[in-house]
Amino acid sequence: MKRRFLMTPGPSPVPLFVRESLSQEMMHHRTSEFKEILKKAHEGLKSIFCTENPVLVLSSSGTGAMEASVSNLFSKEDKVLAIGGGKFGERWAEIAKAFGLNVIEMNVGWGTAPSPDELTKILDDNKDIKAVLTTLCETSTATVFDVEKIAKITNEKDILLVVDAISGLGQDVLLTDQWGVDVVVSGSQKGLMLPPGLSFISLSRRAQNAIATSNLPKYYFDLKKALKSHANDDTPYTSAVSLIVGLATALEAIKKEGLEVRWKKFSKMAEATREAAKALGLETFSQSPSDSVTAIVSPENIKSSDIVKILRGEYGLSIAGGQADFKDKIFRIAHMGWISDKDLIECFLLLEKVLGGLGYEFEQGISKLRLEEVLYG
Amino acid sequence: MKRRFLMTPGPSPVPLFVRESLSQEMMHHRTSEFKEILKKAHEGLKSIFCTENPVLVLSSSGTGAMEASVSNLFSKEDKVLAIGGGKFGERWAEIAKAFGLNVIEMNVGWGTAPSPDELTKILDDNKDIKAVLTTLCETSTATVFDVEKIAKITNEKDILLVVDAISGLGQDVLLTDQWGVDVVVSGSQKGLMLPPGLSFISLSRRAQNAIATSNLPKYYFDLKKALKSHANDDTPYTSAVSLIVGLATALEAIKKEGLEVRWKKFSKMAEATREAAKALGLETFSQSPSDSVTAIVSPENIKSSDIVKILRGEYGLSIAGGQADFKDKIFRIAHMGWISDKDLIECFLLLEKVLGGLGYEFEQGISKLRLEEVLYG
Repeated sequence: MKRRFLMTPGPSPVPLFVRESLSQEMMHHRTSEFKEILKKAHEGLKSIFCTENPVLVLSSSGTGAMEASVSNLFSKEDKVLAIGGGKFGERWAEIAKAFGLNVIEMNVGWGTAPSPDELTKILDDNKDIKAVLTTLCETSTATVFDVEKIAKITNEKDILLVVDAISGLGQDVLLTDQWGVDVVVSGSQKGLMLPPGLSFISLSRRAQNAIATSNLPKYYFDLKKALKSHANDDTPYTSAVSLIVGLATALEAIKKEGLEVRWKKFSKMAEATREAAKALGLETFSQSPSDSVTAIVSPENIKSSDIVKILRGEYGLSIAGGQADFKDKIFRIAHMGWISDKDLIECFLLLEKVLGGLGYEFEQGISKLRLEEVLYG
Repeated sequence: MKRRFLMTPGPSPVPLFVRESLSQEMMHHRTSEFKEILKKAHEGLKSIFCTENPVLVLSSSGTGAMEASVSNLFSKEDKVLAIGGGKFGERWAEIAKAFGLNVIEMNVGWGTAPSPDELTKILDDNKDIKAVLTTLCETSTATVFDVEKIAKITNEKDILLVVDAISGLGQDVLLTDQWGVDVVVSGSQKGLMLPPGLSFISLSRRAQNAIATSNLPKYYFDLKKALKSHANDDTPYTSAVSLIVGLATALEAIKKEGLEVRWKKFSKMAEATREAAKALGLETFSQSPSDSVTAIVSPENIKSSDIVKILRGEYGLSIAGGQADFKDKIFRIAHMGWISDKDLIECFLLLEKVLGGLGYEFEQGISKLRLEEVLYG
């Protein structure tokens, strides 16, 4: 059996100590034992979300929490601005349309971040926009958006800001309360080092007020009910017990290492990845590269999907290809959660083998040298 | 640390071999390795649901799958009949109302099953009813409904039948295709021997046609998308990978033992539980007792919630109390999934200790004798 070596931007590897906690004997979800664990998880989430507001745990993938923010904050025909610039930004618009909202789309080119001036202009031209829906790290293009600047604009105009931080949380800096972000959504299988199956949503006071008046249909994702349960370290419906046990374990480990320490570590790994790509003569794709994942443009005449296929087939290493128009043009290497500098070095050693096998020319071993220079120099 | 001894109607115990599969190294969800596992799970689900139709896997608790059937089968103001007779039957009405349906409620007393004649009358009086929403095993009252008879009525009238089999599946007989049940919903943490976090939904051809014309808002639970992905053994969004690995493992074990064998086993355990209660001088609550869980009426002057509390606090044994009006009046013992005859015997030995301690009088050891007579006699 081949090693499962995950460098994909979700699912990311799950450490052994978390996996062990997942396989504990089942416990009942309405007991003081479980309440204590959920309480710990609730507290740990506040510190990784950098907020004093409640962070709710939902049993769903991240998309469920995205839907929950749309169906709970708004009412029919409310006008919202969705910033697109990749697959996940576009998902905001899709969800908002599915729920009958009046959606203005601000589409920035794939691989670029939204311009604050352009955003201001759109909001000035549409005074009735109630919220901006955007992304911290657009996973499909490995691009980080300047959420701090966006929040400055939305706060000046007293507009809600909803941020998908599904892949970015834990690597790309996000100061929820300090910047004034109303809603942050995330998922378990990226920076939080867990299997997929849980999603999270933080709610500012302003967001909680919006929830009180929303009239869109919801039941499973009813956040009014979830907030009420959260106050008692409980959930409205049976929660994914084993994953929540794992969550408490993972959050404790992140706290011990320190969020700031981790931000610096991943920022360094991201820089090293870009430099290693450059040393191989390759271009990185994003104009505003994320600290969670790096997108690299495939060499001319080599399909990125072939690189991905060979790495997985020959070496058990999973990286991600491109999505939509960039399916065969870029490949993406994650540096998030439990992924380490050592993994990055091994990943590039294997990448060199594959590129060489496909006839691409470069100085053998150069990427490892460059990684080491940036990581340890 | 006290033993965690679960005899609750969900979560039920998770066997070690399933727990071990949950803690495997993480794998990516868009790989042939995972597709094979999901394929196996899809096939295993068909056999436990007794259907040739697709059974979709959702990453949510069972309530999510209940919502998915409402939001995908119907359009605004469609008239549906929800059969209530406990907490979970009432949930159908709540969900249908939340999504703007015109809901007729048929309320049967807690602990009783709906009368087919009464159902026929309501349907005759409301020719525009599009569907009946009901329950296989109403967990809150430990009552099994005669889904075969209900299906006969709905099929004669060409009305959709949607059945919540969250706690019943695997114990209470349910012949989905043979009886003509359109939609069956279930969850992972009961008869399927898994932690909570997955839900399932089977869709007849007639249900699939209804989905094609529904206009209610949905995104995460969009079953049109889920059906399309299912055809490729895939899911629209990142699925709860570790739980699905566990699901394939659990379904294989159920298949090896045999569904019919298990139905007989649980039926015997249910009978033994009722007889043991009777031997202690206690009454069972339901007029139509389920094979998944048994509700026992607490002796006069003893609150069932005290029995539950002491069993958990002193012995680490979790059984369930009553819900709503029956909170202090009944207690419920599950016999589902990985719960065995031995567990039942130990459970009654501890129950005798607790009842004795609370001053209730009975012949010591009588429940064990009666259990053994029924189970092995």
